[in-house]
Parts: sequence; structure tokens; C-alpha cells
Amino acid sequence: MKEEIEERVRKSLLYDFYGELLTQHQKDIYEKFILDDLSLSEIAADENISRQGVYDLIKRCDKILNEYEEKLNLLEKFLHIRDKLENIKELTKDCRDSNDLSHLKEIDDIANEILEDF
Amino acid sequence: MKEEIEERVRKSLLYDFYGELLTQHQKDIYEKFILDDLSLSEIAADENISRQGVYDLIKRCDKILNEYEEKLNLLEKFLHIRDKLENIKELTKDCRDSNDLSHLKEIDDIANEILEDF
Repeated sequence: MKEEIEERVRKSLLYDFYGELLTQHQKDIYEKFILDDLSLSEIAADENISRQGVYDLIKRCDKILNEYEEKLNLLEKFLHIRDKLENIKELTKDCRDSNDLSHLKEIDDIANEILEDF
Repeated sequence: MKEEIEERVRKSLLYDFYGELLTQHQKDIYEKFILDDLSLSEIAADENISRQGVYDLIKRCDKILNEYEEKLNLLEKFLHIRDKLENIKELTKDCRDSNDLSHLKEIDDIANEILEDF
């Protein structure tokens, strides 16, 4: 179940990043599946196409979005930045909680690491 | 001159982001122009094609890279994050220089702003 959710989150992130590169028709159907969480049969009825047709289209979208990420790695880059920002937030909290400036150098180092990765 | 440099920097950033979506031939020639700073004539001689052919190919690459950015806005998103990180660095420096924790809340706010934009 956890893996299924993670897989869905990943698909929805990939769609956030690269969805605009799909056709309008692909976007409409993929959104119903990924964002609105409709079943294949529900989408098939909505769109007046076969369940197999919906399935094929969604698989095709998955493939396209994954291929963009394989080439560009921009989602991975963003997730990496997000992790580092969470680190900065924790360190800032530590500083404030303890009234201790000793983590400021680490915050600066992390900011530099992110900037160097750009 | 400044604008010309900025334009070149922007092209090279767009190439960093979306270059992998060009064909190998396009990449080879575009890199010679943008990264190695060769002239159209030099590239034409290197590649054994006409100067006009090189010019057309580079214009085509510019167009493709700009179209990806128009759709995805990922470069803009990254540049925005970069600016915010520079802010974090300045505030960290202020805190350290003054031994004053008062900017820590701002650092946390900026980190949150970036994370919310994700």
C-alpha cells in the first residue's frame, strides 16, 4: 500500500513537472486517473472510449513522463533541493531553540551546496 | 554588450536544462556555438556544412529550448530558488557577523516559501 502511494505521488510529481508536454487529450485522461483518482472504468465511461483504450493511454503517458525525467533529471534535482531545505529548516530551529549560533555555518554550507549543484 | 552576455548566459542555462532533448547533431553544433564560443564560420568549417546551415540549426535549437521553457518554466523556477538561497546566505552572514539570532525567523520563512512553491 505504501509503495502504491509513493508510486502515485511520484507520478503526480512527474506530471507536475512535465505534464505540459502531453497533448490536451492525454492530460485530460491522465489527470482523471492520477489527480482525481478515478478508475479506468469510470474514465472509460466519461470519455466514451474502451477501458483498454484508457489503460493504454495512461501507460503511454507514464512512459513519456518517465522518459523526460530520464533525460533531464529535473524532478530528482528538485527533490534533492527540497531535502536540503528541510535540513536548513531543522538547523534554523535548533539555533532558535538553543539560542546557539553554532549551526549557522552549516546552514551556509548547505545553501552553498545547493547553489553549486545548479 | 551586457545584454549580449546575459542572452548567452540564458541560452547556456536553457541548454543545461533542456539540452538533452536535442538530437546529438544539434547538441554538437549548439555546444560549439554556446559553450565553446566558436563563430558560425568556424563551426561550418569544422562540420563541413554551410554557414547558413549552421545558422539555421542554431536558430532551430534556440526555438526548441525556448519552447520547452515556455511550457515547463523550470529554469525560471530554479532561478527563483537561487535568488531565495542567496537571501538565506546573506541573512546567515548577518546573523554570524552580529551574533544576533533575529534573522533566523526570516531564514525559516524563506525556506518555507521555497518549499511551498514546489
